[in-house]
Amino acid sequence: MNDVIKLLNAHRSVRAFKKIPVSQATVETIVQCGQAAATSSFIQAYSVIQVAQGPKRERLAALANEQTFINDAPVFLVVCADMQRHKMACEKHNVDMLSGYAEQFMTATIDASLLAQNMAVAAESIGLGICYIGAVRNEIDAVSELLELPDLVTPLFGLCIGYPNTKPDLKPRLPVSAVLKQEVYADPDAQQLLDDYDEQTSIYYQTRSGGQKVQSWSEQIAAKLKQESRPHIMNFLKKKGFLLK
Amino acid sequence: MNDVIKLLNAHRSVRAFKKIPVSQATVETIVQCGQAAATSSFIQAYSVIQVAQGPKRERLAALANEQTFINDAPVFLVVCADMQRHKMACEKHNVDMLSGYAEQFMTATIDASLLAQNMAVAAESIGLGICYIGAVRNEIDAVSELLELPDLVTPLFGLCIGYPNTKPDLKPRLPVSAVLKQEVYADPDAQQLLDDYDEQTSIYYQTRSGGQKVQSWSEQIAAKLKQESRPHIMNFLKKKGFLLK
Repeated sequence: MNDVIKLLNAHRSVRAFKKIPVSQATVETIVQCGQAAATSSFIQAYSVIQVAQGPKRERLAALANEQTFINDAPVFLVVCADMQRHKMACEKHNVDMLSGYAEQFMTATIDASLLAQNMAVAAESIGLGICYIGAVRNEIDAVSELLELPDLVTPLFGLCIGYPNTKPDLKPRLPVSAVLKQEVYADPDAQQLLDDYDEQTSIYYQTRSGGQKVQSWSEQIAAKLKQESRPHIMNFLKKKGFLLK
Repeated sequence: MNDVIKLLNAHRSVRAFKKIPVSQATVETIVQCGQAAATSSFIQAYSVIQVAQGPKRERLAALANEQTFINDAPVFLVVCADMQRHKMACEKHNVDMLSGYAEQFMTATIDASLLAQNMAVAAESIGLGICYIGAVRNEIDAVSELLELPDLVTPLFGLCIGYPNTKPDLKPRLPVSAVLKQEVYADPDAQQLLDDYDEQTSIYYQTRSGGQKVQSWSEQIAAKLKQESRPHIMNFLKKKGFLLK
């Protein structure tokens, strides 16, 4: 196992940070590493908005499920899927951009996520900890307004970065054999793999919580998915010019 | 600059591979590194389908814009956004899963992309080269049928992995200052940054092609976006149970 593989496997979401600043040069290096990731047909359909500590950050933290640790992160970035830059490129050449395709939303979301994961790896390689904040989608309209996002730009998630003041346990992931399939999707062992994983996750939570939270993975998932999943997102994305066709 | 940052910056898409096999243990390590990435509320909404060299791979390569180098890659993986496993989890607990939300498609696409980029980094850390294949979305219905994908599973992209037999040039990315914004989206320098980058990309292509391809970045983008972008994707995703609400 080489050092990079060790680093990838040491990832945990960090939600408590030391009061040590992160230099702007480091932030730029991290973003530049993000940009080194592959990009679909070179479209680079992303932007990253850095929000300093202060009233705007506090408002964002409040909108993101009131996760106050967001205020403590020396660096907070909002990663966006961005096709606005492409509109500008089309206008430069008097071309009517055909937009609104599900394909474009998919490509931009993938591009931005590859960028973000490279950013996460780069940050962790220099001893920083990170936490993705999907909850910026809780009140996505308000977040978009706060960051003054134009059409064809949507927040995907936030990213907290700072020196970790905590080292959470590693949660056991699905077995590789459940995720990696051969030739076709179907797998006769799928149910057994799920049951085994449920047992593993129950034991993990039992050990960690002293018996308080003993939900298996599938129980957690079922509890989550019997509820609506941010039902406002479709409308927001359409308003921004995505997912129209 | 540490070794990880050097590695991230050395990424190029590799489309020619040595005839050296990659062991299945290595493939499993790569997928396991993918799974070490962050996952939204622990949903792990992805599957990876490995397709061996042979008739099925050849059919996939033909469907993916006839990119024959796909046949030469020792390893070919199709990365999928997958909520089918979650349906199974809900059924285990007699819960009616509420699905079809744009939010769920977004989450699964992000999850799978974070996994994929960790896989790419892990592969490159052991001397392998990779290439993302977005063209599996060209004939996404046929690809889905070939891999026997059920509802709530969609291919996102392929990933070729093997020992590189080539070292392509690094294409200049957008300047960090164009991607990283402060506090709000708007940036008075945006047009100037685009113009400078266009000049840089024109010079890059001119140098590399001996003067044949001198399109700037914005010209490439405008040429691409005056055409439709895989207009069949929306219908496919809806058929699979995504993007319904």
